[in-house]
Amino acid sequence: MKHVMRKNAEPVPFTRVKIEDQFWANRIQINKEHTIPFQYQKCKETGRIDAFKLDWKSGIEPVPHIFWDSDVAKWIEAASYSLATCYDPKLDALLDEVIGLIASAQQPDGYLNIYFTVVEPEKRWTDLRDAHELYCAGHLIEAGVAHYEATRKRNLLDVVCRYADYINEVFGPEEHKKKGYCGHPEIELALVKLYRATGEERYLSLSKFFIDERGKEPNYFEEEKKKNGPGYFEELFSTFDNLKEYNQSHKPVREQERVVGHSVRAMYLYSAMADLAKETGDDSLTRACERLWENLHKKNMYITGGIGSTAKHEGFTFDYDLPNETAYAETCAAIGLVFWNHRMLQLDCDGKYADALERALYNGVISGMSLDGKKFFYDNPLASLGDFHRKEWFDVSCCPPNLSRLLASLGQYIYSQNDEEAIVHLYIQGSARLHIGQKDIILKQKTNYPWDGNIFVELELEQPAMFALKLRIPGWAREASVKINGETFDIAHHIEKRYVRIERQWKNKDQVELVLPMPIERVYAHPNVRQNRNCVALQRGPLVYCLEGADNPEPLYAISLPRTSILQAQFDERLLGGMVKITGQALRCDDSDWDGELYRTTPPTAKPFEFTAIPYYAWDNRQPGQMIVWIPEA
Amino acid sequence: MKHVMRKNAEPVPFTRVKIEDQFWANRIQINKEHTIPFQYQKCKETGRIDAFKLDWKSGIEPVPHIFWDSDVAKWIEAASYSLATCYDPKLDALLDEVIGLIASAQQPDGYLNIYFTVVEPEKRWTDLRDAHELYCAGHLIEAGVAHYEATRKRNLLDVVCRYADYINEVFGPEEHKKKGYCGHPEIELALVKLYRATGEERYLSLSKFFIDERGKEPNYFEEEKKKNGPGYFEELFSTFDNLKEYNQSHKPVREQERVVGHSVRAMYLYSAMADLAKETGDDSLTRACERLWENLHKKNMYITGGIGSTAKHEGFTFDYDLPNETAYAETCAAIGLVFWNHRMLQLDCDGKYADALERALYNGVISGMSLDGKKFFYDNPLASLGDFHRKEWFDVSCCPPNLSRLLASLGQYIYSQNDEEAIVHLYIQGSARLHIGQKDIILKQKTNYPWDGNIFVELELEQPAMFALKLRIPGWAREASVKINGETFDIAHHIEKRYVRIERQWKNKDQVELVLPMPIERVYAHPNVRQNRNCVALQRGPLVYCLEGADNPEPLYAISLPRTSILQAQFDERLLGGMVKITGQALRCDDSDWDGELYRTTPPTAKPFEFTAIPYYAWDNRQPGQMIVWIPEA
Repeated sequence: MKHVMRKNAEPVPFTRVKIEDQFWANRIQINKEHTIPFQYQKCKETGRIDAFKLDWKSGIEPVPHIFWDSDVAKWIEAASYSLATCYDPKLDALLDEVIGLIASAQQPDGYLNIYFTVVEPEKRWTDLRDAHELYCAGHLIEAGVAHYEATRKRNLLDVVCRYADYINEVFGPEEHKKKGYCGHPEIELALVKLYRATGEERYLSLSKFFIDERGKEPNYFEEEKKKNGPGYFEELFSTFDNLKEYNQSHKPVREQERVVGHSVRAMYLYSAMADLAKETGDDSLTRACERLWENLHKKNMYITGGIGSTAKHEGFTFDYDLPNETAYAETCAAIGLVFWNHRMLQLDCDGKYADALERALYNGVISGMSLDGKKFFYDNPLASLGDFHRKEWFDVSCCPPNLSRLLASLGQYIYSQNDEEAIVHLYIQGSARLHIGQKDIILKQKTNYPWDGNIFVELELEQPAMFALKLRIPGWAREASVKINGETFDIAHHIEKRYVRIERQWKNKDQVELVLPMPIERVYAHPNVRQNRNCVALQRGPLVYCLEGADNPEPLYAISLPRTSILQAQFDERLLGGMVKITGQALRCDDSDWDGELYRTTPPTAKPFEFTAIPYYAWDNRQPGQMIVWIPEA
Repeated sequence: MKHVMRKNAEPVPFTRVKIEDQFWANRIQINKEHTIPFQYQKCKETGRIDAFKLDWKSGIEPVPHIFWDSDVAKWIEAASYSLATCYDPKLDALLDEVIGLIASAQQPDGYLNIYFTVVEPEKRWTDLRDAHELYCAGHLIEAGVAHYEATRKRNLLDVVCRYADYINEVFGPEEHKKKGYCGHPEIELALVKLYRATGEERYLSLSKFFIDERGKEPNYFEEEKKKNGPGYFEELFSTFDNLKEYNQSHKPVREQERVVGHSVRAMYLYSAMADLAKETGDDSLTRACERLWENLHKKNMYITGGIGSTAKHEGFTFDYDLPNETAYAETCAAIGLVFWNHRMLQLDCDGKYADALERALYNGVISGMSLDGKKFFYDNPLASLGDFHRKEWFDVSCCPPNLSRLLASLGQYIYSQNDEEAIVHLYIQGSARLHIGQKDIILKQKTNYPWDGNIFVELELEQPAMFALKLRIPGWAREASVKINGETFDIAHHIEKRYVRIERQWKNKDQVELVLPMPIERVYAHPNVRQNRNCVALQRGPLVYCLEGADNPEPLYAISLPRTSILQAQFDERLLGGMVKITGQALRCDDSDWDGELYRTTPPTAKPFEFTAIPYYAWDNRQPGQMIVWIPEA
């Protein structure tokens, strides 16, 4: 397989990026100081870590769960990222301790999985559809790569390389090898990371093998069940309408046209497809990604960037089916959406990918964590009757460590670069160290984003340098203006796929001022979204707003918003640590003149009141109450 | 127990009532000619009837189901009613044949149940919570009474009396008897019927015992499970939030304040409570019924008279929770609502009970059957995306025979009488033979109801007679006027609980003309019904209307109805056999100017079109398509 060079970009690694803002830095700090230690503690006290000692015996409770390896792996990944940006010798030592335990669990042949070593060792590789065996391997590989890149230590990397080498002996195109792939995609993108970290092409080939096999007929999983009998989740899975769609094995990936099935599986699969497209130049994968991207973002995505409408199979239903109260919109799926869009953005620097990434990040991803970093949403509905709240932990606890690893590595999503361009995708105060055309450049951002849209970029260079600075014009920005060193720059002829491209000889202390006016927007859903008919949502900049019981009279569903109401945005420093709220006059149906009957022939009367809307991500951080995003427009 | 006489009314039995109209007579004919024979055939070919031969042996498929006895019993009941109004010697003989088979299955001690005789005989009376054993007994008893009253033959009545006597030996207040009751109420109301048919007070006492025991602590079902282990539906029931509420054993019935749990169970329970209140004069039961009635009808009933919002436990959720697309609104539950309101109406002649009965009957009950009588809805949603259709039969096939027995005995719901009053509850063309104050009276109704509200009542008497004629003024009628023999009668001072009471010396050929203007009404739901916020439904007379894809452009959820639109009602003889349709101008959101994005900042534009609405009961009788009842009001 030849490594094809394409004129595209690489993310600037988070180790070269500093975040020094009001919005994210505090979250990252809480993640480091509270969330990551808390998750270690939960992994420890629930037996997930000690399970690597392999001393479980039949009869002991709890029985190690098939997911456990991945929870610990995601914790290692998050902790490693955190260590890379803010060194902590205790955490470093703790990581080595846990890694030592994991290494000790590796079998002589390289195999490494708790459940299939101590609970059902005879079933190794017999239930790829249900048992998450390669999925757990994928997370261990991601952890190994993350730990290596954070510390340059090879103690976990070597372990996962041995495991990947063993997997490469079991699976592959050669006749004696299994032609299977995992029911839950994950190892595919992990193997690309391992390839990038080690340069070993066999890992890229193995990833491509898994992607190419997926969905071929006869279906591997159906054959597997014929041969090996019911899977681990047989009973649950038998209630699903279409199990092949559930795990995206219904068609070869290049023929898939609609997003189907379990939404996290879909995001990890498409992320790997984008990775492979980038590494191998396989345009058939790029085209499949683009097709699936259109279907997802134009017919199946909540305004919060949440995806997957139904709890039943944690996934997609049908185009335009976006119920609010029962929205599943799993935190991990929104994170997966960030992963995938980030990869698409490196393939093709189109602002639509950054828009989607930003939408998810500022709304449906961070809604997953309480402001104090202590509680989590697994699902993220867009309306609540008041009985839905974050929890500290879950039996299947994929979301909390997934959030942690995202936050701890957030810096990587802000910038990309290639040999000619420095690209700013997200506006977050801080700095980045770039290396363009043999020259070191420091790019500093000063902004109060997302509370306003004024961004100052300053460059530090030892000598002047010719390159293009690309600044994203977000999709939500109807107008944008740029000044360079105080002088207006006419952006009209310099827009490329929603980025303004400023190519010139840059010199030290050059300043670029980007102004993105941030009015309150009334947003409407496509008429085919029946759940939002005649409703409006409020958005300002990248933030989607909601009404919460803490600020507004319940029941909230009795509220409507006249189309003519004047809306104000105001920063309130006492509100939940400081945020911009939206206020204005709304109407509220009143049942005071209603005689108690359930139905009558005169409509309810409505009275005006002053409503307050807060950013969606911040809901459920005060007293329990109702919440709505979509408001009927009167 | 003393039989207390109360000044209330008795239904005029359907054997004394003739239905000769355009709306119902045809349905009753189809029920007789097609539905009842078809249901026999299904009971026969699925093994339900031959199962009474008790020749099932372990290993034979299908295993008799615990519900089977009740399906056959409801068929006997329906067939008996049909026989009573329209004699058919073949049906009479067929009934005797089936009854002979049932009689042959009765055990020497009187016990009679297929499942617990051939499949698990050792488990008799050990799973009252789940196994429907007393429920099946109740339906057999109802069948026995119906067959006796239709034919005056005692062949089934004697069988069920022996069975009831045996049950009376097993259950009761005496120390050696079981203190249990059925998880599915039904036998309670059946025993009151048996008491009324036989005059044997022990049946009334046994019914009262079951009602009084229900909900006492310690809970019988919890004790039963401790003693006997998991029930027949343990796995399903373990997924319910509150199993004691599910089967209404959470509190003694007199303390129950809210409708909870499985809605058919609730209706049968409350019906029995009303029966007992009437027979025993127990006001505590009347008060409990009135409280539950208020909660159900003012907070938990669809506009169609459908009840039970969720498929999960086939029942009630919480006040004002009335989702449309996912409405369960089981046909049997709407029928149960008719049963209960009919009983309440005999306790207290208040039009509110007749209004509820009529609402269910003309909407959520008959929607359960296709116009050709061949297909059935189990659940009756108030909105459909086009993939919901009636079926010929169900594995658990309670609804089709329940509809059949209701239609075959429809005459009993039209009139009541006591010694001083002839009461007309429903306006259906035909006649009734009354016996008031020792005099025979024939009351004839001439009307085109429900298509218009003009009703002519003519009396035939041999001699003049003093009594009161009470005519119901439906809740939907804003105005009503009465003429007696062509002269205006001022009704204002003669209204009693929504009935106009005309007391006078009536003579032969006296005519009363009641005019109920029937404009199209726009109906609004209580503001707490969040699913219908800003929506309107159309109703004309007792009929709720809907929009269907066959008449209107899909997607229907893109339609809204301006508050100012002028609406027309017109009888269309070519429409589904002839019915009044509603037409007018509505708006339809158009996506022709929508650029494919899922969200945008300008609202969709709407274009006017001429809509057609048809009565809700008649939907899904043409090509498959969408349907909505509640329309956003623009």
